[in-house]
Amino acid sequence: MADFEKKMAKLVNIIGGLLERKQYAQLKGLLLPMESADIALLMDELPGTSIPILFRLLPKELAAEVFVELEPEHQEQLIKGFTNAELKEVLDELYLDDAVDIIEEMPANVVRRILAHSEPEMRKSINEMLKYPEDSAGSIMTTEFIDLKRDMTVEDCFKRIRRNASDVETINVCYVVDKNRTLLGYVTIRDLFLADYEDEIGQIMDTNLISASTLDDQESVAERFGRYDFLAMPVVDTEGRLVGIITADDVMDVIQEEATEDMEKMAAMLPSDKPYLRASIWETWKSRIPWLMLLMLSATFTSLIITRFESALASCMILTSFITMLSGTGGNSGSQTSVAVIRALSLREIRFSDILVVIWKEIRVAVVCGLSLAVVNFGKMMLVDRMLFGNPAVTPLVAGVVCCTLFFTVVCAKTVGAVLPMLADRLGLDPAVMASPFITTIVDALSLLIYFGVASALIV
Amino acid sequence: MADFEKKMAKLVNIIGGLLERKQYAQLKGLLLPMESADIALLMDELPGTSIPILFRLLPKELAAEVFVELEPEHQEQLIKGFTNAELKEVLDELYLDDAVDIIEEMPANVVRRILAHSEPEMRKSINEMLKYPEDSAGSIMTTEFIDLKRDMTVEDCFKRIRRNASDVETINVCYVVDKNRTLLGYVTIRDLFLADYEDEIGQIMDTNLISASTLDDQESVAERFGRYDFLAMPVVDTEGRLVGIITADDVMDVIQEEATEDMEKMAAMLPSDKPYLRASIWETWKSRIPWLMLLMLSATFTSLIITRFESALASCMILTSFITMLSGTGGNSGSQTSVAVIRALSLREIRFSDILVVIWKEIRVAVVCGLSLAVVNFGKMMLVDRMLFGNPAVTPLVAGVVCCTLFFTVVCAKTVGAVLPMLADRLGLDPAVMASPFITTIVDALSLLIYFGVASALIV
Repeated sequence: MADFEKKMAKLVNIIGGLLERKQYAQLKGLLLPMESADIALLMDELPGTSIPILFRLLPKELAAEVFVELEPEHQEQLIKGFTNAELKEVLDELYLDDAVDIIEEMPANVVRRILAHSEPEMRKSINEMLKYPEDSAGSIMTTEFIDLKRDMTVEDCFKRIRRNASDVETINVCYVVDKNRTLLGYVTIRDLFLADYEDEIGQIMDTNLISASTLDDQESVAERFGRYDFLAMPVVDTEGRLVGIITADDVMDVIQEEATEDMEKMAAMLPSDKPYLRASIWETWKSRIPWLMLLMLSATFTSLIITRFESALASCMILTSFITMLSGTGGNSGSQTSVAVIRALSLREIRFSDILVVIWKEIRVAVVCGLSLAVVNFGKMMLVDRMLFGNPAVTPLVAGVVCCTLFFTVVCAKTVGAVLPMLADRLGLDPAVMASPFITTIVDALSLLIYFGVASALIV
Repeated sequence: MADFEKKMAKLVNIIGGLLERKQYAQLKGLLLPMESADIALLMDELPGTSIPILFRLLPKELAAEVFVELEPEHQEQLIKGFTNAELKEVLDELYLDDAVDIIEEMPANVVRRILAHSEPEMRKSINEMLKYPEDSAGSIMTTEFIDLKRDMTVEDCFKRIRRNASDVETINVCYVVDKNRTLLGYVTIRDLFLADYEDEIGQIMDTNLISASTLDDQESVAERFGRYDFLAMPVVDTEGRLVGIITADDVMDVIQEEATEDMEKMAAMLPSDKPYLRASIWETWKSRIPWLMLLMLSATFTSLIITRFESALASCMILTSFITMLSGTGGNSGSQTSVAVIRALSLREIRFSDILVVIWKEIRVAVVCGLSLAVVNFGKMMLVDRMLFGNPAVTPLVAGVVCCTLFFTVVCAKTVGAVLPMLADRLGLDPAVMASPFITTIVDALSLLIYFGVASALIV
């Protein structure tokens, strides 16, 4: 992708030059054949003052497509500079779900102006969609699709599609509703092509419906898209009436969002909606400090354990040197397992009923990992710490204590790492929270207890 | 989704009963209206012996769809039980990309049998596709699509689509090629509906092509799908000839796979292709031990640092109690930053040229986080450790040393967490490897050096 970025940087320069020399015809010729997403990327890179100029060079439809892809601050700036007529023109070209996405990012006065200049029908739909909770199926659906009646013929459908093709988000799937708008079935454009012109929709439609409800969580919608390889899914209200559809391109965004959210939770952050650079220092602090604070305070337990064994440590100071190695290795072992289990849960490869299988698997892996680590570490302590660095305090007995602790720590860590996310899932909590940092804190305490237990038994 | 699982568990019971009583007509009636993915899920849950019986109840086309969705071991079992005629029937119904996916999971003798019973043309295509490297665009594309010539009229196209609709993966986008199969442009089915029957394809096609090359990495393909909201993308060979297309449903799988891979790397595992439960103990060990071993051995540095300051520690044993809290908080702070930066890099929200902006942002966040943590920790050490637990060794001076170290550790950790992934990206390495465990090991050493540095200056 480095090539792509170089190309873009070059284009930014060229466009800057053309703008300076006011060579608008060449500029237009340069922009027209480009993808809207790329034009938006270029505009976001150029100085803010040139955005309205470029925007006005674009034909209406392309301008609207570019508008959707711009950064919110540039959208806001453009809207503020628009005449009422210009604003209306752009709004008329927008798909409803894009309009809603934009409105959600705008300050209240801009939202009022947008709503005031939308067609009454669009305004009504926007207001409807703004009511759906964030991350619900209702909030990502579009209300522009092709609906058919069961007594239409295939030929009627073709006519209807031809009439509406330019206003709907997709024509690849059409939905069949009755007069109360209850969803009855669907036909794909492919079904229509394979049928005879005279066939009735009621006969060829697929009634085996998998739909989302407006309040369903977007993550579960994405999961169903993946399971059934859908390109579109109907959304019905609580009375089974068709209110919208969700398309694959929106689901791809959802999958990325959900993966980001899981990663953030796994790294002890509260998930945030904003792209990295757009979050303020204060917002970033707010998303990071709660877990840092909680985990720091819970480390009081490990301090207490160490204080408790202070005299034992004082009599064999060398043991102190291996505390960070032991808690580090325990933490890493535990997070490997917890992340693998969390991901498998979220991809529905495993569920709570598999808990015994998972624990059994992790214990066996832990035994093999623990043994390999202990053996290598024993060798390392003898050869490197004792012989190479000439530290006489590293006796075979000390190495034995450390390696014994290492083995049991890895086994405990992997067991805890497997159990906690599964329990969280069972209790309806998000398993992603049970990842590395949380596990690490527990494993730190466990590894110290094991360490001092083994040491007391064998040395002190 | 708990509802869905309960429904499935109930169905497994009902089907088991029907199978036992040999009520095949009812069974068929039950299965026919279901989605192929759900039938496959049920079959995977039922005892292996019932799979061939259920499979033979299904009509040819549905049977093939179900076959694609089954677990590889059940696919293998079915293939082994098939007569040659049955095998051929299933193969003829498969889409090429599904056939290739299945073949990649089968042992050599099964692959030979599959290839021997494929149509010669399909066999040739399968062999071609098996040659593309894993995770390349070529390996996820399908070669069944609709191609058009530029001198065809829209009416010709409709006829061609009608003739081929049942054999291709999608008719939503059709590709225009010349006689050497060089890709010239594309038309969507919507364009065709909006055009007149007499229009020539050469006039209405979109020549603004964004295509993948067969050797492109699937991650970069997914990134372009996301950027341009595509539902399909053409794949060309090194001479610009159209060889296949990639559809959105396959890209959703890629996005999930890539997110899993990043999470695995972030948790110090080598990425594995296999779902959690299907990886053997040995395979799981192999993916987890390299980083565990490396990180354990690199902890030698922290041991050395502690040994170096052993006498200082011995004279003020209470300092030992806070080592794990300090390295834990440092590790957590660092992994928050590194995961946020890694994710932003992989979603292309930031790139290497933003490095100074990122570092400046992280330093400011670190100062605010570090201060909040230090203040709270000072209070906690005074109130809890000193007063509540009555530990006289926790003097204000000791608390000052710990909190001072805490502050600088957080700042260092967040800086390291920001710089390393960006450097890795610059060097063409995968930034995901620079996540928590790697950062933690570095931060452990740093926090100890700061700790003993501050302690030597203020106490000893």
